[in-house]
Amino acid sequence: MSAKQPEPTLLSPLQTARALAAEFALTAAERDERGGTPKAERDAIRHSGLLALSIPTQFGGMGASWGETLNIVREFARVDSSIAHVFGFQHLMLATVRLFSSPDQWQPWFEQTARKNWFWGNALNPLDTRTVVKKYDGWREFSGKKSFCSGASDSEMLIASAVDESAGGKLLIAAIPTARTGITLHGDWNNMGQRQTDSGSATFERVRVEESELLLDPGPLSTPFACLRPLIAQLHFAHIFLGIAEGALEEARQYTLKEGRPWFKSNARHVSEDPYILRHYGDFWVGLEGVRLLAERACNQLDEARHKGPTLSSDERGQLALSIAAAKVAATRTGLDLCNRLFEVTGARATHASLRFDRYWRNLRTQTLHDPVDYKVHELGDWALNRTVPAPSFYS
Amino acid sequence: MSAKQPEPTLLSPLQTARALAAEFALTAAERDERGGTPKAERDAIRHSGLLALSIPTQFGGMGASWGETLNIVREFARVDSSIAHVFGFQHLMLATVRLFSSPDQWQPWFEQTARKNWFWGNALNPLDTRTVVKKYDGWREFSGKKSFCSGASDSEMLIASAVDESAGGKLLIAAIPTARTGITLHGDWNNMGQRQTDSGSATFERVRVEESELLLDPGPLSTPFACLRPLIAQLHFAHIFLGIAEGALEEARQYTLKEGRPWFKSNARHVSEDPYILRHYGDFWVGLEGVRLLAERACNQLDEARHKGPTLSSDERGQLALSIAAAKVAATRTGLDLCNRLFEVTGARATHASLRFDRYWRNLRTQTLHDPVDYKVHELGDWALNRTVPAPSFYS
Amino acid sequence: MSAKQPEPTLLSPLQTARALAAEFALTAAERDERGGTPKAERDAIRHSGLLALSIPTQFGGMGASWGETLNIVREFARVDSSIAHVFGFQHLMLATVRLFSSPDQWQPWFEQTARKNWFWGNALNPLDTRTVVKKYDGWREFSGKKSFCSGASDSEMLIASAVDESAGGKLLIAAIPTARTGITLHGDWNNMGQRQTDSGSATFERVRVEESELLLDPGPLSTPFACLRPLIAQLHFAHIFLGIAEGALEEARQYTLKEGRPWFKSNARHVSEDPYILRHYGDFWVGLEGVRLLAERACNQLDEARHKGPTLSSDERGQLALSIAAAKVAATRTGLDLCNRLFEVTGARATHASLRFDRYWRNLRTQTLHDPVDYKVHELGDWALNRTVPAPSFYS
Amino acid sequence: MSAKQPEPTLLSPLQTARALAAEFALTAAERDERGGTPKAERDAIRHSGLLALSIPTQFGGMGASWGETLNIVREFARVDSSIAHVFGFQHLMLATVRLFSSPDQWQPWFEQTARKNWFWGNALNPLDTRTVVKKYDGWREFSGKKSFCSGASDSEMLIASAVDESAGGKLLIAAIPTARTGITLHGDWNNMGQRQTDSGSATFERVRVEESELLLDPGPLSTPFACLRPLIAQLHFAHIFLGIAEGALEEARQYTLKEGRPWFKSNARHVSEDPYILRHYGDFWVGLEGVRLLAERACNQLDEARHKGPTLSSDERGQLALSIAAAKVAATRTGLDLCNRLFEVTGARATHASLRFDRYWRNLRTQTLHDPVDYKVHELGDWALNRTVPAPSFYS
Repeated sequence: MSAKQPEPTLLSPLQTARALAAEFALTAAERDERGGTPKAERDAIRHSGLLALSIPTQFGGMGASWGETLNIVREFARVDSSIAHVFGFQHLMLATVRLFSSPDQWQPWFEQTARKNWFWGNALNPLDTRTVVKKYDGWREFSGKKSFCSGASDSEMLIASAVDESAGGKLLIAAIPTARTGITLHGDWNNMGQRQTDSGSATFERVRVEESELLLDPGPLSTPFACLRPLIAQLHFAHIFLGIAEGALEEARQYTLKEGRPWFKSNARHVSEDPYILRHYGDFWVGLEGVRLLAERACNQLDEARHKGPTLSSDERGQLALSIAAAKVAATRTGLDLCNRLFEVTGARATHASLRFDRYWRNLRTQTLHDPVDYKVHELGDWALNRTVPAPSFYS
Repeated sequence: MSAKQPEPTLLSPLQTARALAAEFALTAAERDERGGTPKAERDAIRHSGLLALSIPTQFGGMGASWGETLNIVREFARVDSSIAHVFGFQHLMLATVRLFSSPDQWQPWFEQTARKNWFWGNALNPLDTRTVVKKYDGWREFSGKKSFCSGASDSEMLIASAVDESAGGKLLIAAIPTARTGITLHGDWNNMGQRQTDSGSATFERVRVEESELLLDPGPLSTPFACLRPLIAQLHFAHIFLGIAEGALEEARQYTLKEGRPWFKSNARHVSEDPYILRHYGDFWVGLEGVRLLAERACNQLDEARHKGPTLSSDERGQLALSIAAAKVAATRTGLDLCNRLFEVTGARATHASLRFDRYWRNLRTQTLHDPVDYKVHELGDWALNRTVPAPSFYS
Repeated sequence: MSAKQPEPTLLSPLQTARALAAEFALTAAERDERGGTPKAERDAIRHSGLLALSIPTQFGGMGASWGETLNIVREFARVDSSIAHVFGFQHLMLATVRLFSSPDQWQPWFEQTARKNWFWGNALNPLDTRTVVKKYDGWREFSGKKSFCSGASDSEMLIASAVDESAGGKLLIAAIPTARTGITLHGDWNNMGQRQTDSGSATFERVRVEESELLLDPGPLSTPFACLRPLIAQLHFAHIFLGIAEGALEEARQYTLKEGRPWFKSNARHVSEDPYILRHYGDFWVGLEGVRLLAERACNQLDEARHKGPTLSSDERGQLALSIAAAKVAATRTGLDLCNRLFEVTGARATHASLRFDRYWRNLRTQTLHDPVDYKVHELGDWALNRTVPAPSFYS
Repeated sequence: MSAKQPEPTLLSPLQTARALAAEFALTAAERDERGGTPKAERDAIRHSGLLALSIPTQFGGMGASWGETLNIVREFARVDSSIAHVFGFQHLMLATVRLFSSPDQWQPWFEQTARKNWFWGNALNPLDTRTVVKKYDGWREFSGKKSFCSGASDSEMLIASAVDESAGGKLLIAAIPTARTGITLHGDWNNMGQRQTDSGSATFERVRVEESELLLDPGPLSTPFACLRPLIAQLHFAHIFLGIAEGALEEARQYTLKEGRPWFKSNARHVSEDPYILRHYGDFWVGLEGVRLLAERACNQLDEARHKGPTLSSDERGQLALSIAAAKVAATRTGLDLCNRLFEVTGARATHASLRFDRYWRNLRTQTLHDPVDYKVHELGDWALNRTVPAPSFYS
């Protein structure tokens, strides 16, 4: 595969991503069927240098803004939302160490990630409290289970969390090598969508975690700036949803134009002139245009917040949270509507398994359940009515 | 399997169907994955006597009304909409010969079907004009291809159509043994939903069709009474859709009650008290209640029309068409909404592949594309505004 | 006006109602503008005998079932939903005394109502607790204010409620002559819709209420049978909503056919063939058909419950409550959608004030706020998920 | 009223508009009831200098961009959408002469408008072809009727159109003094919404129009740049719709917070915590956020197009048309939903006529019928599917 790789020095990150996406698109349907780890595609991303996309240039990265980074997530999501998800989580994991740990910690991690093309996986699921921590002199021990560990398989580093029962259930987060003794990844992700995200379960058996691996300074959700972490996750999701919807629309469009026939009761000579077909496409367009602008604004605000750094105020963080929530809710709704209705514009023959057009809906439906959209709308209502900004949590 | 068969004499048809459905439910998810012909389940239906469900008792059948017949289709659809579809098509095929051919023809077919437990398959797709007929002295020859031949595999009899180009493209329909020389069923149905309906393609290579096998008296769509045939098909679809939605709701309900947990921001102690969860269930209920009544009314009207027989007027047939169209449109919308939203009430873990909860949406989405819902709404609008009843066709 | 009155002996109640409705329709738009008490129309109803519609024949009434009674409410609502509301409340007030008081009480009231054509008004608003009761030896005294007293103006009898603070806030309900000393009706109803329902406020100044006027045996919401009262109110609302929507559709239809022109970009020669116009009409039809069947079923079940009388069980009452709730929610949604969208099919010129097409929306929007539809959906959700029937209250 | 006028030199245009809006808000409900010409408010606008808002500074105007101008339309629409409409049409009329006539013509008109605070009215309704033109030597004569003449009453100048039947029905447009002999404005606008827009009919009786008053160079819709005119109209509408919705939300919010009470079945202590109330507000917010961004982007693109001037290409104009169409469709849908549903969050008492909360829906419903939203969606569908930009017309 390396022979096909673009020369990173000649292409912009977006061009690189597009070249990769074009390649991923060729096998996306087949890999959706297969599930499992997309090893070749992960390696292609490794070789592309894009794992360092969001790492500042002084640490050897590409120095991309969040706008650029999430735009590439969306680019991947148009053709392969599993890869988009683990790719976005790579940068979310990097943001996690950047925001929760001290420069002594994150700077070497950034530097090594850029140099060695490390893939970072996720074992931080704050609602799954089965992994607990035990304190020893100078180190800790993580033991227990963890679900929904996206991107953990085939990763070099892992962000893992455990509950410190001796400290009232406080959440401890660590960055550790995936290969560390005691960590077992079960490769048991087999779900109806996002099938190549490796979001299965992990077991920690007396896993030793050094103090220097704990993200304690300033620690999780400790300051408004640190609280950007869940917002990055949420905006990442919005870009996945948007990308899936855009990909679905483009595939539907090609199918309608090439394969569609007007229904025998239609007055249209070509399906492309049928009023009901056009109505669906018009609805899709209106919905997507709104989501695109909401996502774009949120990215700009996120990059402003990143530049503010630790001076970011709670209220500024709250405003960003609202922008991101609006983008995510709109993306969820528009996307589900589009992925469901796309069959109205493609017709019965478009259900053939070889096309796997249902994967758009399956992928989106799966990923949109990360946290309930009902409670996201609730948060927005609390602002619209009471002018209360969302309270920071791992989901807001 | 025969050992498990209920004694037909002791159970009502509905009880028999329920016993079968309970058995089918155990393997439905697995068979959805597998696809192909559900041979064991088809044989269980054969042994149950239900293939003669709609056949009048004087020909050895169970003499069920359309209301009873379609109610059993819906019963099957709650757990296995593929089987429901081919089972309903069995009775649609029987109605086809009843309505399009003379008593000399359909009476022996009815009698043999009841006696020998014949399964009837479909190769009548009037929009697929690739199969043509050639006239010989005393017989005809069918040659060409045909798509969407639901239930043709593992059937004893086939309803097949061909275009008579010498008669201006007139549609000829015949009832022939599936085993006749020249018929090849390709077993190539592999679609995202309704995966065990065997709705693949067929090839007719110079297939000999006797005059006595042609449905010419009174012929297809020849009288208002004969025009009940497409209405039975449409109402059959509405029952499939309703059954799928009811099955999805029941499965979602069990999951919510057993596995659901309130979101951490919910004030509810149990998920069953969460206001947003209840809202979704309330919406589902309102939708389904309307569909159930629309389906029931249409069944009653269809049975009235059946009893009228050849005296059925165009206007009476038109009113029935409107009732059926309303039921089908409402079932489509309510069903798609429910099958999509059921994940809001079951959550992220309900996407696990072993549950295959997505099959409700995949099955419904596939089957609802049989003919465009947009043009069904159009027909209803033509009535609501212009008081024009739908013009009979194979889709109205 | 009496000269125009139909001879009650020659016409069925429905025919009488239709004749009245045809007359009311001529001035409905004008009276919507004017507001106030529709004295002439109320008198026409008085003379028609329909105030005794739901009173059993042995007491001089017409002996109509709830199905027949509410069907006439709906008939009126198609052209004048204010009159429909007070007319329906007449029969709700009669049901109130029937269900909450002893035969010694309600039988004479029924008999006199039928003989003297009494109009009954409402001053029972259980959520407005400003009217209190004081107990004297052999009688009580009601003092305070009451809002939303529909149909109280120009009525002969009033159902009034007061809170007995000495009995823990227990609700006492009485049937008293509207002319009783101390009762002031303020005639201050001036709302955006339902403008001739006289739903204004009342003041009770030391109003003497005899023991024999109190509805204590069995008393309010005392038994499942007595608990039919709020269900009748709810089903009455559903019929108002349905009637408004049907009236709106019919008026829109006439306007489209007579005044409509296809948009200059439409391929249709006549507006009646425009695909988007037909789509709206088709949607309206599907919605209304469902509501009609839900309302009809609920009426049948209500009449069954009435026949059961005091043997009605809590569960049977609960099932009826669910049927009625579904009808009301569906009527609310379908109606609001239709009354809002009807302008899409009539166009800009249909906004002329002389047409007052907005009154459909204003009337429906006003009346649908009686109690929140969100909590009605919640109740249905509680059944759909938890199999809990609605707890009886004045709103369920 | 002049005593209250802000000093134009001290306030920005937006501040001036806000001060005016605050004043208009006090009487908006009352004037909605009254209808007719809001003379005092029109004069207040005259005195404010805002009639020259969009006129470049070299002609004595304020030199506002379209973004600034339409933002002020939206500001007015929040409290009084009738005034917002005629105010926006003022600037649309100015754009009409700017785009359709030669500098010799529009420059003096601009200069005089700024100096004399001329109000411009509209008598250009291209679908109303009842006014015809007759050619004389050196001048023309307009005769006939015209409907929907927004802002014509109390105006100094009029944009009027007539059909030249001798030239194949070509549309001629002129700018003429409203006081010209032969023009009668009927003051007959009395519609359910937008009641103070004076959108009534006019009669032209042999009205003399000089050649120099005809907008012939470059003429109507003659170039992509000239074709900005209908786009300005469409984007103006989107801002009206958005402003109405924002005003409705703000009024609903104040009412909920001050007057709302939780329903007796709600677990919330305050209505502001009720989950269903919050859900509605959340939905409103998501909808409005999308519309705001769509409107803003379209304004920016319109200002870019204005700066391009005659070099604007058809495709650039087409892209702008798409952005504006998306904004308008989204504003229509979000606005109608909000203005209808706001009663769910304010309740039954919010229907009191003194509040006139229904005016938001009535105003929006009326104005959104200017041209059918169905055909706007159709246009967007034609782009989304076929990549065809909207063909310029007076509505696209």
